[in-house]
Amino acid sequence: MNRYAIIVAGGKGLRMGGPTPKQFLMLNGRPVIVRTLEQFLRFDSTIQLIVVLPEEHMGTWAQVQKTHLPDVTLRVTIGGAERFDSVKAGLDLLHELDGLVAVHDAVRPYVSVQTIADSFQSAALHGSGVASIPLKDSIRELVQDGSKARDRSHFRLVQTPQTFRVGELKEAFSRATHNAFTDDATVYEAAGYRVRLIEGGFENIKITTPEDLK
Amino acid sequence: MNRYAIIVAGGKGLRMGGPTPKQFLMLNGRPVIVRTLEQFLRFDSTIQLIVVLPEEHMGTWAQVQKTHLPDVTLRVTIGGAERFDSVKAGLDLLHELDGLVAVHDAVRPYVSVQTIADSFQSAALHGSGVASIPLKDSIRELVQDGSKARDRSHFRLVQTPQTFRVGELKEAFSRATHNAFTDDATVYEAAGYRVRLIEGGFENIKITTPEDLK
Repeated sequence: MNRYAIIVAGGKGLRMGGPTPKQFLMLNGRPVIVRTLEQFLRFDSTIQLIVVLPEEHMGTWAQVQKTHLPDVTLRVTIGGAERFDSVKAGLDLLHELDGLVAVHDAVRPYVSVQTIADSFQSAALHGSGVASIPLKDSIRELVQDGSKARDRSHFRLVQTPQTFRVGELKEAFSRATHNAFTDDATVYEAAGYRVRLIEGGFENIKITTPEDLK
Repeated sequence: MNRYAIIVAGGKGLRMGGPTPKQFLMLNGRPVIVRTLEQFLRFDSTIQLIVVLPEEHMGTWAQVQKTHLPDVTLRVTIGGAERFDSVKAGLDLLHELDGLVAVHDAVRPYVSVQTIADSFQSAALHGSGVASIPLKDSIRELVQDGSKARDRSHFRLVQTPQTFRVGELKEAFSRATHNAFTDDATVYEAAGYRVRLIEGGFENIKITTPEDLK
């Protein structure tokens, strides 16, 4: 069964405050997105990679690929306004419906090969495999007149990779009635499918603020 | 009004896998707990500091203080089995009931002076000031047959400092019927008080795993 990974770098990285989008920041000498792609290639050197980027980053990407990944075959497509639109653009390139596809944030370069493998295995067995972690901090729910403590052991924070059967994820995206989903598991769930969580990793952080690169 | 800070280093740091407890790991040449204490002294050089440590770490602490904080006056006391017991041990040293007391994790050395100031200001005005941050990741709630997506904008992750009026927090701790609270705001809330959240910081992480020190 073919394996695909859609690496989503939709954001313009404005939160970092600098001119360089987060996915192109250097991490020990290599751009963040390159480190992310390399983890998927370490998992499976034959995986089919799809990179989704805003149109204005295509020039930077071409340079990055030439410099750091000259021998890797991958497809690139232009993302949309929301994360949903970007993932959908990636899915539109896939036509083999019984393959498995991981969706992963370009700005999560620390993902372990084990987590990637676990998400594909869960998707192969159960239809989906979504990386998640327990909460290290206490959690409060906002209510009308303030907030109230909730039991953190009842919650999981969702990461990527989120891996699914290609046909089911494409169907879920085509049936969605809005594009305000914060992750792919929610799109999948809204289409009536059951989300299976797998264990992610505390090291698998999303680089969204400067301190994440420290 | 007097200001106090209880710096809780209750854990034995076993999660780090090494022989050095997390609070004594070196961060750019100074132990984590020293950096944490220094932030409170930067906020207010007259703040009264109370350090709560497991008994077996008292020897290490004496060395640390002699080397890194020789001129700082502070009180040290022995913590208990749970976080609750450790904070209570610190509170037992306070007798001036109308002061303000911040409770803070020794392993959160990156706390900003601004966050500390905000928590004291909120406690002075409203009785409590609890640092919290919005969620960067999607969240799912575990339910009987799996999990379901929740709207992350309805939740806040709780950090420290958590600052309160001394008398109210002491009363809340004395009225608590168990010691399985994961934070002080929950103890305070269980006694019928209203918790006020303030904005914490994404940099204000808790060092619980080796990757946090990277």
